[in-house]
Amino acid sequence: MALPVPRRQSYIACLADFAAGRDTPSAFLDRCLASIETFEPTVGAFVHIEIAAARKAADASTARWRAGKPLSRIDGMPVGIKDLIETVDMPTQCGSPVYEGWRSNRDAASVLALRQAGAIILGKTVTTEFAAKVARGTRNPWDPARTPGGSSSGSAAAVGCGMLPAALGTQVIASLLRPASYCGAFGFNPTFGAINRGGSHDSLSQSAHGPIAATLADAWIVAREIADRAGGDAGYPALYGPAALPATRKPARIGLLETPGWKGADTQAKAALAGAIERIAGAGVQVCTRTDHRGIALLETLLERGGFVSYSLVNYESVWPLNAYRDRDPGKLSSFLLERLAEAEKMTPADYRALLSERTGARAAHAALADDCDALITLGAPGVAPTGLESTGDPVFNIPASYLGAPALNLPLFMIDGLPLGLQAIGAVDRDADLFGVGGWLMDQLTPV
Amino acid sequence: MALPVPRRQSYIACLADFAAGRDTPSAFLDRCLASIETFEPTVGAFVHIEIAAARKAADASTARWRAGKPLSRIDGMPVGIKDLIETVDMPTQCGSPVYEGWRSNRDAASVLALRQAGAIILGKTVTTEFAAKVARGTRNPWDPARTPGGSSSGSAAAVGCGMLPAALGTQVIASLLRPASYCGAFGFNPTFGAINRGGSHDSLSQSAHGPIAATLADAWIVAREIADRAGGDAGYPALYGPAALPATRKPARIGLLETPGWKGADTQAKAALAGAIERIAGAGVQVCTRTDHRGIALLETLLERGGFVSYSLVNYESVWPLNAYRDRDPGKLSSFLLERLAEAEKMTPADYRALLSERTGARAAHAALADDCDALITLGAPGVAPTGLESTGDPVFNIPASYLGAPALNLPLFMIDGLPLGLQAIGAVDRDADLFGVGGWLMDQLTPV
Repeated sequence: MALPVPRRQSYIACLADFAAGRDTPSAFLDRCLASIETFEPTVGAFVHIEIAAARKAADASTARWRAGKPLSRIDGMPVGIKDLIETVDMPTQCGSPVYEGWRSNRDAASVLALRQAGAIILGKTVTTEFAAKVARGTRNPWDPARTPGGSSSGSAAAVGCGMLPAALGTQVIASLLRPASYCGAFGFNPTFGAINRGGSHDSLSQSAHGPIAATLADAWIVAREIADRAGGDAGYPALYGPAALPATRKPARIGLLETPGWKGADTQAKAALAGAIERIAGAGVQVCTRTDHRGIALLETLLERGGFVSYSLVNYESVWPLNAYRDRDPGKLSSFLLERLAEAEKMTPADYRALLSERTGARAAHAALADDCDALITLGAPGVAPTGLESTGDPVFNIPASYLGAPALNLPLFMIDGLPLGLQAIGAVDRDADLFGVGGWLMDQLTPV
Repeated sequence: MALPVPRRQSYIACLADFAAGRDTPSAFLDRCLASIETFEPTVGAFVHIEIAAARKAADASTARWRAGKPLSRIDGMPVGIKDLIETVDMPTQCGSPVYEGWRSNRDAASVLALRQAGAIILGKTVTTEFAAKVARGTRNPWDPARTPGGSSSGSAAAVGCGMLPAALGTQVIASLLRPASYCGAFGFNPTFGAINRGGSHDSLSQSAHGPIAATLADAWIVAREIADRAGGDAGYPALYGPAALPATRKPARIGLLETPGWKGADTQAKAALAGAIERIAGAGVQVCTRTDHRGIALLETLLERGGFVSYSLVNYESVWPLNAYRDRDPGKLSSFLLERLAEAEKMTPADYRALLSERTGARAAHAALADDCDALITLGAPGVAPTGLESTGDPVFNIPASYLGAPALNLPLFMIDGLPLGLQAIGAVDRDADLFGVGGWLMDQLTPV
């Protein structure tokens, strides 16, 4: 069955209509459910969905908007929660038989914050096995023969085709930005620690939570409403900046980051980025590269081992609880995870310390660019979503943001042969708001008319 | 019923006898069980105990020692686990009706590491409600009319009277060092992050796991055996230093830290510390104080708000999951926790950021002392354990270590009117091994002959 062309649906764009009584959260939910009816049988973005409860919550929100008393700017917004994050009213299964049917009986910090703000938890979205590599069947809404990317597969697929205006994802390597690029959605991977991960099963030293969303405004406002209520991770400042979407800001200087992915990137993808750079430069913004900027050259060099170091750190940090699950029942872990675990168990604390130091060095090189470049840009992926559902695609362009603990945006700006590809913008640590300002300017400049 | 005078039992002290066949882990366990029979009916250190399984494990360990193939230096060591930390074979109840009878069906990272090393998880030890203030009935083995301190109440009480050679505790404010002081045990609060907290319900930005133990050697070796296998918290170097107890090391210079507790400390406690300082100085070690060392004076000033800032940070970081539990059933939280939660919910992310910055400043002042003072010493508590079981005692002397994220030892050196009181030694961040070296020297110098 041929699917229609996917179309994102912004909730924030409707706020004025909600306030004026021309539209309601109940009607918005109906539009999401219509998209779900169209796409979900093919795409499979959800592992669990609660339609009746959502309708009831939407009606309550509609009443609040009518009374002029919405709880927040996301009151009534239907959201999806990556199934790595706990929810009181739905199972949390982490994409693994280990957690089949498991219920934590509590909301994660971010989920509770969303509810406090009036958002509607419509369902749990598919994640790969423990947010690692093994895919769980979700298809790309732009072409069901292709992967939606992973590990936030369901969140990106659902947002990309307007089943939801926003969904929570997580990223430790490439898990949020890559599927956002493949599915044609905005993705926001915040500064490490900026959104409270309490009650999520990804306590890793590079992992961050963020929204995949229909627009920049939906992404920013969802993230801010969560951070205002739940804070960040313990010991980290929560996401900050203006309450509203940061004003569009023309950058003075932008750095082009090739990353180790450049040599393997698709020709059309490179051409799309080259075209974007031409327009950026044409608007009077200086674009620096490794050939003319020593700081970028150093960072590019240090990023060469970013993938190896990131995977090694994450694998070591994942030994527990995977070893506990394996000791209980190895049959419930994929052979991929069992092999990765066995490798990681050979590492020593001294190995880990050396890798941590290496990452610290790369982060220092990135921090040194903060006052010099308003953002770094690169591709969202080496090309459009590849065919096949086994692999979730190449993470190479997405590693830098998590490795550096830096905020990054996927901007769904390119189309190649009818499939989306993102432009990625990486900001300085704790300057997430500035990155959104530049992101808005990039959208204004580069959106095809 | 009058209790005998408590006596600690070291496991590490028996290793040579195990190796030579003069003693066995099974016999050691019997000695622990004898102490449990004597003390436990009055003291109430355990919430759960598995004697039959422990005997079986001890026999297996005995066979390994006989075969000359122990799994580690703690093979066969009976240990207790604070009931905030998950265990696959016992409930984890967090001292709260919210978790009554709850089982995680997995071992926490530290517990799994202990088992891999051959240690025997004998039982779960009493914690106050969610490791906060509300006590759960444990009595001090030195005087059952007195508190054992909290929140690691059961771990300290059990080790203080030889029911166990070591038990895991946690500290975010005073929860490990204070009960160690009150119960006459060694306590080791490691550098923040040095021992993996995975599977424990204390994901706070100052919280650390450490052993309460019969001797310095038991404390160091238990901590090292855990860290070698489980690593530290994600993103932090695990505890490091020599595998064996670090060699005793005479310090060149020691700083006396009065802390905000000095003015309220007991006269006899102050006299005990003064006597210790006299002997330290008499051995040719320079002892600096706030009156003659500008760095110590600055740190003392910054510590004045350490209690307020620590509690505020911890309360804010504790909003979740307490708010989730309250929303489900407020009747299962104490009025103390409900009130604290309501206060913390009034804080904003901006308030939190300001407090974090203040802590960062105090940590910088402490770091600046690292090369100048081999350790800072102070009292383990304002006096011996107070009478009554309602309060777990005054945390004022224990706040600095957690506030600074620094390693600290409670050395059970003083006796006042037949009750123990600790001397506390605080080291530099990541120099836990150096602190043990100084701790050994202090024990040699100050142990009453």
